[in-house]
Amino acid sequence: MSTIARKSALPAKRTAFDAEADIVVVGGGAGGLASALFARWQGNEVLLLEKADELGGTTKKAAFWYWVPNNKHMQDIGIEDRKDDCIRYMARLSRPEAYDPEHPTLGMSQWEYDSYAAIYDNASPATELLAEKGALEYRHCDFVPDYWAELPEDKAPKGRVLLPKEALPSMSDGGEVAVRTMSAKARADGVRIQTGHRVQRTVVDDSGAVVGVEADTGAGKTVAFKARKAVIFASGGFTHDVSMRKNFLSVPVFGGCAARSNEGDFVNIGAAAGAELRNMNYAWMCPIVLEKALNDDPSLIGTFSPSGDSMIYVDRNGRRVTNEKLAYNESAQSFFAWDPAKSAYPNLVLIAIWDSRSQQHSASEEYGRFIVPEGKDDGHVIKGETLADLTRNIRARFKEHASRIGGMAIAEDFEQTLKATIKRFNGFAEAGKDEDFHRGERQVELLFNGPAAETPVALNPTMYPIAGSGPYYAALLTGGNLDTKGGPVTNANGQVLDHTGTPIRGLYGVGNCVASASARAYWAGGATLGPILAFAYLAANAASAEGRVGTKAA
Amino acid sequence: MSTIARKSALPAKRTAFDAEADIVVVGGGAGGLASALFARWQGNEVLLLEKADELGGTTKKAAFWYWVPNNKHMQDIGIEDRKDDCIRYMARLSRPEAYDPEHPTLGMSQWEYDSYAAIYDNASPATELLAEKGALEYRHCDFVPDYWAELPEDKAPKGRVLLPKEALPSMSDGGEVAVRTMSAKARADGVRIQTGHRVQRTVVDDSGAVVGVEADTGAGKTVAFKARKAVIFASGGFTHDVSMRKNFLSVPVFGGCAARSNEGDFVNIGAAAGAELRNMNYAWMCPIVLEKALNDDPSLIGTFSPSGDSMIYVDRNGRRVTNEKLAYNESAQSFFAWDPAKSAYPNLVLIAIWDSRSQQHSASEEYGRFIVPEGKDDGHVIKGETLADLTRNIRARFKEHASRIGGMAIAEDFEQTLKATIKRFNGFAEAGKDEDFHRGERQVELLFNGPAAETPVALNPTMYPIAGSGPYYAALLTGGNLDTKGGPVTNANGQVLDHTGTPIRGLYGVGNCVASASARAYWAGGATLGPILAFAYLAANAASAEGRVGTKAA
Repeated sequence: MSTIARKSALPAKRTAFDAEADIVVVGGGAGGLASALFARWQGNEVLLLEKADELGGTTKKAAFWYWVPNNKHMQDIGIEDRKDDCIRYMARLSRPEAYDPEHPTLGMSQWEYDSYAAIYDNASPATELLAEKGALEYRHCDFVPDYWAELPEDKAPKGRVLLPKEALPSMSDGGEVAVRTMSAKARADGVRIQTGHRVQRTVVDDSGAVVGVEADTGAGKTVAFKARKAVIFASGGFTHDVSMRKNFLSVPVFGGCAARSNEGDFVNIGAAAGAELRNMNYAWMCPIVLEKALNDDPSLIGTFSPSGDSMIYVDRNGRRVTNEKLAYNESAQSFFAWDPAKSAYPNLVLIAIWDSRSQQHSASEEYGRFIVPEGKDDGHVIKGETLADLTRNIRARFKEHASRIGGMAIAEDFEQTLKATIKRFNGFAEAGKDEDFHRGERQVELLFNGPAAETPVALNPTMYPIAGSGPYYAALLTGGNLDTKGGPVTNANGQVLDHTGTPIRGLYGVGNCVASASARAYWAGGATLGPILAFAYLAANAASAEGRVGTKAA
Repeated sequence: MSTIARKSALPAKRTAFDAEADIVVVGGGAGGLASALFARWQGNEVLLLEKADELGGTTKKAAFWYWVPNNKHMQDIGIEDRKDDCIRYMARLSRPEAYDPEHPTLGMSQWEYDSYAAIYDNASPATELLAEKGALEYRHCDFVPDYWAELPEDKAPKGRVLLPKEALPSMSDGGEVAVRTMSAKARADGVRIQTGHRVQRTVVDDSGAVVGVEADTGAGKTVAFKARKAVIFASGGFTHDVSMRKNFLSVPVFGGCAARSNEGDFVNIGAAAGAELRNMNYAWMCPIVLEKALNDDPSLIGTFSPSGDSMIYVDRNGRRVTNEKLAYNESAQSFFAWDPAKSAYPNLVLIAIWDSRSQQHSASEEYGRFIVPEGKDDGHVIKGETLADLTRNIRARFKEHASRIGGMAIAEDFEQTLKATIKRFNGFAEAGKDEDFHRGERQVELLFNGPAAETPVALNPTMYPIAGSGPYYAALLTGGNLDTKGGPVTNANGQVLDHTGTPIRGLYGVGNCVASASARAYWAGGATLGPILAFAYLAANAASAEGRVGTKAA
C-alpha cells in the first residue's frame, strides 16, 4: 500500500499552482510512460507523477509480451490479419453470452466494438513509433499462439505477440527491460518525472473542465499541478484495495500480483469528477499461490505456468475438478465455481500435487511457478514421504488457514479419494488422453507447460504418471488477478466520459485504471500491454490537440 | 425506462430554489414512503419526489413479506432470537468465503457487521411504529421458514417474517396493500408528494454539504428543491440500466422485475457527490422467464415458485443440472455456471419441462410461475404432443432467440438424453429421493412448491413421475434479478460516506439505491423489505436531527 493516505477525491478549484506543464501524466508504468513519450514527441511539455518511489508499476513485474494485431512483422512475412476477423475474435471472447456473428457490432455495445477497432488500428503504429525512437525495440515471437488459437474466429492464431528486444530467452523479464528503456528515453527526451506524489483529485475550472491535479507527498505536503492541455491518468487498477475487490469484482479473490501501489485511485477520482464507471466486475485473472496472497507477499507473481507433467490439482475431497493446464485467465475461473445448494465456493482452494520427477525436472523461479527449486522461497510447498504423510500435512496447513478461507477443510477420506484420482490420471497419462478434462489438447497448454523430464515417447507432454512412491509435494492455489479491468469509461481517444456519454474536458485515461472492453477475455499473451500502448498513443495525440481554439473535447 | 432523459449528475451550486422542505425524500417505494413517514412523525416538513407517474416503485410488484428479526410477535409467543445468533446467520450467508465464527466481526468488515446489527436492532421498532400509526399493519407468518432454516447458524428458523395485514391468503399482493396504506397515511399526515420528477443531481454548498436537489419534469422543466436538513435517496437499484448491469453485476442477467424506473440514478448522483460505491457486484436474484426478459415485458415477475411436481429443468443437452426447487436467489445462480475450457455459460438458458398433470394442477398466475393457466399470458409456453414434438418446438424457439443468447442451440441428441433424464428422475420420484440434487429436502423448497395434484402417498411432495405420454410443456428460463444491491455506502444512520469513510453532510440513502451488506445472501423472504424499513427509520431519525448547532454529520 502507499504510505501516503487516501484523501477526498472531490475536484478542487484553484487558480494558483505550484508547477505546470502542457500535459500531466499520472502513473509511471507502461501506460504512463508511453503516454508521456507520445505526448512529448508531439512537442508538449510533459510532467509525469508517480505515487511509488520508483517508476515501473505493475509493468516491472510483467513479462511484457505485447499483443499487436496485424503488426509490421506479420505484414512483412505475409501473415494475413484482417480487421473484421480480429474484431470478431475479440468480441467472441469478451462477452460470449452476447456474441452475435450477424449483428453490426457483433452483439457488443458500440463502445466495445469501437474499442476493439481502436486496438486493431493503433497498436501497431504505437509500437512502431516506440521502436523507431528507441524507447521500446522489440523482437517477434512467431511461435506464441493466441490463448484461443483453436477457435474458428481466430484467423491469425500466431504472429501477434511481440517482446522487448533485450528480454531473456525465457521471455520472463520483458517488463524490467521495457521500464528501463522507456524511462531512460523519457528522461533523455525531457519528460519531467516526479515520484512519491500521490494524486488525490483533479482541479477543475468553472465549466467543469479538468485543468490540473492536486497531489500529496510523503512529507505531507499538497502540491498543485496545472495542465495547460490535459491530464492523462494511467495509475493502474484496484487490485490492492481490499474493499474495492470485495465490492466490485465478480469473484472473491484473495489478492493479485499488480504493483502494491495499484489501489484504484482513479476509480474514485474519476467518479468524483463525474465519470461513468464500466467493466468493474472483471479482472485479468490468474491462479496464485494462496499463502503468498494471505501473507500479502509483494513478490507474488501469478501462476502463468502450471508446470509439472506428473502433477494434478485436486479439491478438498481429493478429486480433480479442472484441466490444470488451461491458460491462466481461464484456469483461475475454476476456483470460483459456486454451489448454490450449499452457499459455498467448493473449489476456492485447490491443491497442486506432484512427485519427485516433477520436482526434479519442472522446478523454476520464473512465471510464478509453484514448483520451485528446493530451498528457494518454498514456504508454500507441503511435503510428505507418502501420500498419507502428505495428506496429514495438507490437512494441517488447511487448519492453519481455516479462519481466512471460510473454514474450508480437507475431507475425511481425502487420501483414499486422492489415490483413486491418481490411478485414473495415471491411466490417462499412459494413454496420452485426459478423458475427464482434455488436458494438453490446446496449443497454449503446451506453451506454458514449462520444463519437464525428457521421455522417450511422450504421447501427451503435459501428462506423466505420478510415481507410486514418495516423496510427494503439494501447494495450495486459489484464483487471483494480475490487475483489474474496471474504471472510468473512455472513448477511443482516451477521453473520459460522463454519464451522458460526453467527454469531460481535459481528462484522459489509459490502461488498467480505466474500463477495458475486453470484459471476460484474455485474448492472448500481451492482451494487456498491446492495447495499453494503442490507447496511450491515441490519448497522447488527442490530448496534445487540446486547448486550441475549438477544442476537440466538445 | 423513464421518459425523462438522464442528464449530468455533477452537483450544482445555487442559492435560489423553487420550493423547500426540511427533508426531501427521493423515491416513492417502501424505502421512500417509510423514510417520509418517519421524518414527518418527527415534526419535519417533508417533500417526496418520485420519477414515475405514480408511487409504489418495485414495492408495488412485491409480495412484501418483511423479515424482522426478534419481532414483537416472536417475543410475545416466546421464540428466542438472540442478537449474536442472528448476526452470525447473516454473516455466514453474506460472504461464506470470509466467514470466521471466532473473529470479532465474524470475518466481515466492520461496515457489514454494523449493518447486520442495525437491522437486528431497528427492524422491529420501525415495524411497530408503522403498525401503531396505522401506516402498515401486519400479520405474522409463523409457518414461513428462513431460506437457510437448516443451517446450524439459524437459531430462529421460523417467526421472523411479517406480512401486510390485509394481504390475500396467498400472500402475493402485500406490496399493493403496503403502498396503498403507506401512501394514504403519508398524504393524510401532510407529506407533500410530487410524481413525475426525475432528480438529476444534488445541490451542494461551498463546504460540499448537500442542501437540495435538482429535478427534471416530463415537461422539460428543471426544478430546484431546497432541503433545510437533508436529502434521503430511496430511488431503487439499477436493474433497468443495461450498461450498469453489464458493467457491474457478477453475472450476465437479461433483466429483472424491479420497477422500470429503477435505472441506478443514485449510483451516478451519489458517486458524483463523492460517495464510495459498494457491493456493486451483487443482486437479489431470481430465475425469470427468458422471453419476458428478452421482450422487455414490464409485467415480468421473478419465478419465486417453481411449481409442478412432474416438472424438471434440463440444459441444452437434455440433462438435469440443478435442484429445481432451490430458493429463488440460489436457483438463479445455477444458470451462471461458467465453463472456462469453452469460454461459455453452458446453463445460461435452462428448459423447464412438465406434463399434463402439472399443467392441470400446478398452474397459477401468482409468484411469477411459468406454469400458467392455458390462454393466460402463456406466450412463453412451448407445447408438444410427444417428446419428439416438444423437442422440435424447443429447438425452433432456441433458433428464434439464438442471436440474443450467444448462439446457444439445442443438442442433436437432446430428445434421447431427455428421455434418459426423465427415466432417472421418475425413479427418484417413485423412491421419494433425488440422488442427484436432493430436491425437496429443505423446508423452503416445500414452501414454494406451489399447488399440486393430490397424491395418496407422496414420499416427496416436490416430485412425481413425468407421464409416459403427452401433451408436454416447456418454458425457457434464465437467471435474473429482483433488483440490485449496490450503490453508495452508508453508515448505520443511513448517512452516505465518501472515500475516506466520512459522511457527506446532508446526504442519506435507503434501500436498493445504496449498498446492502448482504452481498450474496438472501436470508429469508422479506430480507429486502425488513432491512429497508430499519434503515428508513434510522435515516429519518438521523436526518431529522440535522441542521442543529453542532450537527451530527461531522
